[in-house]
Amino acid sequence: MDFGIILKALGLLLLVESASMLPSLGVAMYYRQGDAKAFMLSIIITLTAGLIMTFASRSKKGMVRYKEGFMIVGFGWVLASAFGALPFYLSGSIDRFVDAFFESVSGFTTTGASILNDVEAMPEGLLFWRSFTHWLGGMGILVFTMALLPAIGAGSLQIFKAETTGPTTDKLTPKIGQTAKMLYFVYLIITVAQVIILRISGMPLFDSLIHTFGTVGTGGFSNYSASIGHYRNPVFEWVITIFMFICGVNFSLYYDALHGNFRTLLKDKEFQLYAIIVLSSILLVAVNINSAIYHNAGESVRYASFQVLSIISTSGFASTDFDLWPDFSRMILLLLMFFGSCAGSTAGGMKIIRLLLVFKVIRRQLYRSIHPRAVIAIRVGSKTISDETLHNVFGFIMLHLLIFIVSTLVLLAQGWDILSSVSAIAATLNNVGPGLNLFGPSRNFSILSDFSKILLSALMLLGRLEINTLFILLSPNFWKR
Amino acid sequence: MDFGIILKALGLLLLVESASMLPSLGVAMYYRQGDAKAFMLSIIITLTAGLIMTFASRSKKGMVRYKEGFMIVGFGWVLASAFGALPFYLSGSIDRFVDAFFESVSGFTTTGASILNDVEAMPEGLLFWRSFTHWLGGMGILVFTMALLPAIGAGSLQIFKAETTGPTTDKLTPKIGQTAKMLYFVYLIITVAQVIILRISGMPLFDSLIHTFGTVGTGGFSNYSASIGHYRNPVFEWVITIFMFICGVNFSLYYDALHGNFRTLLKDKEFQLYAIIVLSSILLVAVNINSAIYHNAGESVRYASFQVLSIISTSGFASTDFDLWPDFSRMILLLLMFFGSCAGSTAGGMKIIRLLLVFKVIRRQLYRSIHPRAVIAIRVGSKTISDETLHNVFGFIMLHLLIFIVSTLVLLAQGWDILSSVSAIAATLNNVGPGLNLFGPSRNFSILSDFSKILLSALMLLGRLEINTLFILLSPNFWKR
Repeated sequence: MDFGIILKALGLLLLVESASMLPSLGVAMYYRQGDAKAFMLSIIITLTAGLIMTFASRSKKGMVRYKEGFMIVGFGWVLASAFGALPFYLSGSIDRFVDAFFESVSGFTTTGASILNDVEAMPEGLLFWRSFTHWLGGMGILVFTMALLPAIGAGSLQIFKAETTGPTTDKLTPKIGQTAKMLYFVYLIITVAQVIILRISGMPLFDSLIHTFGTVGTGGFSNYSASIGHYRNPVFEWVITIFMFICGVNFSLYYDALHGNFRTLLKDKEFQLYAIIVLSSILLVAVNINSAIYHNAGESVRYASFQVLSIISTSGFASTDFDLWPDFSRMILLLLMFFGSCAGSTAGGMKIIRLLLVFKVIRRQLYRSIHPRAVIAIRVGSKTISDETLHNVFGFIMLHLLIFIVSTLVLLAQGWDILSSVSAIAATLNNVGPGLNLFGPSRNFSILSDFSKILLSALMLLGRLEINTLFILLSPNFWKR
Repeated sequence: MDFGIILKALGLLLLVESASMLPSLGVAMYYRQGDAKAFMLSIIITLTAGLIMTFASRSKKGMVRYKEGFMIVGFGWVLASAFGALPFYLSGSIDRFVDAFFESVSGFTTTGASILNDVEAMPEGLLFWRSFTHWLGGMGILVFTMALLPAIGAGSLQIFKAETTGPTTDKLTPKIGQTAKMLYFVYLIITVAQVIILRISGMPLFDSLIHTFGTVGTGGFSNYSASIGHYRNPVFEWVITIFMFICGVNFSLYYDALHGNFRTLLKDKEFQLYAIIVLSSILLVAVNINSAIYHNAGESVRYASFQVLSIISTSGFASTDFDLWPDFSRMILLLLMFFGSCAGSTAGGMKIIRLLLVFKVIRRQLYRSIHPRAVIAIRVGSKTISDETLHNVFGFIMLHLLIFIVSTLVLLAQGWDILSSVSAIAATLNNVGPGLNLFGPSRNFSILSDFSKILLSALMLLGRLEINTLFILLSPNFWKR
C-alpha cells in the first residue's frame, strides 16, 4: 500500500476543509455571537494539520489503486468529520467532543440526526457551518479533492468508484474529471435556484441558505427545533417539497437534460419507479392522515407530500410531528427510509435502482417456477444486468439488513423500546435523520449513551459510503500482505 | 393441463382425510361431549366428496407434470383445510365458518395461531382433531397421497418437489417413494418416543398426544389456553424443548443416522449453524430476562431455551407470557420467526440453509470489494452452489419480505398498531402461531376482521408451501395455453 499518497490526499482534504470554514467564519463575524474565535482556531488547526500531512508525504507520483482509494475515502470522511466537529466543541456550544463529532458526522454524511436540545440557542455561525457540512457532504467532499489529485498524478477513478452511490457507475466513468465538474455545475444551479425561490417566497436569506443546504445535500438540519414546521407559510413547504423531489433524482440525468435530452430523464426506469413510489406513498399517507387527523384534503396532501419526500429523499425535514400520525403512515415512512431515492443522487438508503432489480428478480423467480427451463435475462431499459451485478445487489441488501438488525439489537440491549431502536438505526444507517418514538422529529439523539452515539456515527458513515468502503477497512483481509 | 389427474389426486386426498378423522371420532365417542355426531357427519361429507371426485375423473394413467403438481399441492392444502374445518363448524364449537377455516388452516399448515377464546371449553374430540391436523400437516398430507399415486401411474416427483421445503431437495430425489417411507418412519419413531417420554414424566396420555402432535408437526396447538405454562412440572418443559430442537433438524439426516452415519449429522453445515443460532439466542435471551425479570439463572435458562426453540422450530408453544419480556428478547424472538429451522424439517420460516447462503454471499461480497477480479464459488460443505440456486434464494427472500411488508400494511390500514401487525404477519407467514402485543401468546386472533382472517389463512398456506406454489397458481402466466 502506498501510504504516502494516502497521507497527501488526506492532507489536501483538510486544506480544502479549512478553506470551507471561511464562509462560516464570515457569518460568525457578521452576527457577532462569540463563535468567530472558535472558527479561527478551527481553521488554523485544520490548516496546520493539512499542511503537515501534505508535506510529510514523500509521495510524488503515487498510484491510487483499489486499496488506496478505499483508505482515502474511508479515513477521509472520518477525518473531515473529526475536524468539522472542532467549531462546535471549541466554541463551547456543544460540551462534549463525542456529541460534537456525532453532529459533524451527521452533517457531512447528510443525515441530519442531531443531539441538540435547543437548536435556536446556537450562534448563527455554527448553525451555518452545521448546514454547510450537508452541502459539502452532499456531492462528496472527497470529489472536491479529486479535482486536485490529478495535479499530483494520482488516478482518481478509484476514489470516485468508492464515493458514488448505487450499483452502477459506468454511465459516468469516461472522462471522469469532466463529468464530476458537470455534476457540480448541476448541483450549483439547483442550489442557487432554491435559494432564490425561497428568498422570493419570503424566507429570510439566512434561513433560505440553511434549508437549501439541507435540501440539496439531502441532510435536513434546520435552524429551528420545529424544522419547517416553524413557519406558517405553506409556500415554503411546497418549494422545499419540490426541491426534495428534484434532489432524489440521478444527477447525471439532469446533465443529459441540460444537453437538451429530456426524454432520457422521463424514460429512465429508476426515475419512473421513484415517481410511482413517491406518488403512491403520498396518496396512501394523505388518505390515512386525512381520515385520522386533519379532515382537510388540502392540508393532508401538503403534509403527506412534504413528509414522504423528506423521508424518501433522506433529507429528514419535518413540517409537523409525523410521529403523532397513525401507525399505518409511520410504517410507510419507516419503509421509505430504507428505499431512499435514485442512485447518483445525494440521498441515502438502499436506492430505487436496487428495488427495481429486486422486483425483476421476484418476477423472474415466479416465472421460472412455472417454466423451469426458461433462461431469462434481467434488463433495465435496454441494458442487460449481469449475474455479478445481481449478486452484488443481493449481497448489498443482505449486508444492509444484517447491520440494521445487529445494531438494532445493540440499542435494544440498552433498554430502549423496539420502535425507537428500529427507527433510530433506520434513520442513521439510511442517512435520514429523525426516527420515531423517543427519536421522533420533536426529539433528538442526546439521550443516547456515548457508546451508542459512536455506533450511530459509524452507521451514518457506513450508510453514506454504501457500507462497503468503511466495512472493508475493518476486514482483516484488507490488511493482509 | 390434465385436469383428470388433478381431480383424482384431490379426490384421493379427501378419502385419506376422511379416514384420518376416525381417531378423533373415537376420542369424541370415548369422552362423550357431544362432538361425535359432528365427526360422523364430517366423515360422510368428506368421504362422499372424495368418492365423487375420484370416480368423476376419467384419467387412467395421467402424467403429473409441473403444472399438475402445483395444482394438486396448492388446491390440496386449501381443500384439506376446508373439509378439516367441518368438525369445528358442524359441532357448533366454532360459530362461523371463516373462524373454523382459519383454525383448520392453522392446524394443517402447522402454524398454531388460534381464534379460540376459551380452549378449555372445547370437547376433547375436537381438541384432538385440532392437534392431529398438525401431525398430518407436519410431513405434508399430500405426501400421504404420494404413496397412493404410483398405483394410479402418476409420477409423484413433481408433488414432492412442490411439497418439500428448502432450496435443495436433490438429496432425496432418487427412489423417492422409498425415501418418503423412510422419512415417515423417522417421523413415527420421534412421535412415539415423545409420547412415551411425556407419559413417563407424568403427563396424562391425552395431553401427551396433543403436545406431541404440536411438537413433531411444529404446530403448537395446546389443549390449554396457557399452553405449556399450564403445568407446574418443569420436566415437561425440558422434554418438549429437546423434541422441538430435534424436530427443527433436516429429517433426512436422521435417515442417515439410522444407517449408522452419525457424522453426516454433526458435519452438516446447516445443522451447525442451526445449533449456533439456537445456543446464542438462548444465551442472549436468558441473560436479558434474568437481569430484567427472573433473577434466577436456572429459571431464566429454562424459559429462554423453551421459548427460543418454540419460535425457531416455529411450533409456537409458550411456557410463559413472553410478550411481557423486555423488548430485546421480544425482538430476538421476532427475528427467529423469520429464520425458522432447517430445510427438510417440519418447520416454517425462511430456513437456516438460506441464512447460511446469505452469510456466504455477504462474505464473498466483501472479499470481492477488496479483490475485484477474484472469482469465488460459494460452497456448502463439499458442494458448490450454482448461480441459479443463489438467484432463487435471493428471489425467495425478497418475495417473502415483500409479502410480509404488504400484508403488514394491510393490517395497519385497519388500525392495528405496528408491533401487533408486524408480529401477526410474521407469526402466520412463518407458520409460528402467536405473535406479540394484541396477538401475543396470552391472546388470540379472534379480534381480526373476516377479511384479515382470510388474508392470514392465505399467508399460512403461502408460508407452508414456501410461497411459490400458491402464488404461482394466482399468476396469469400459469394459466396461459
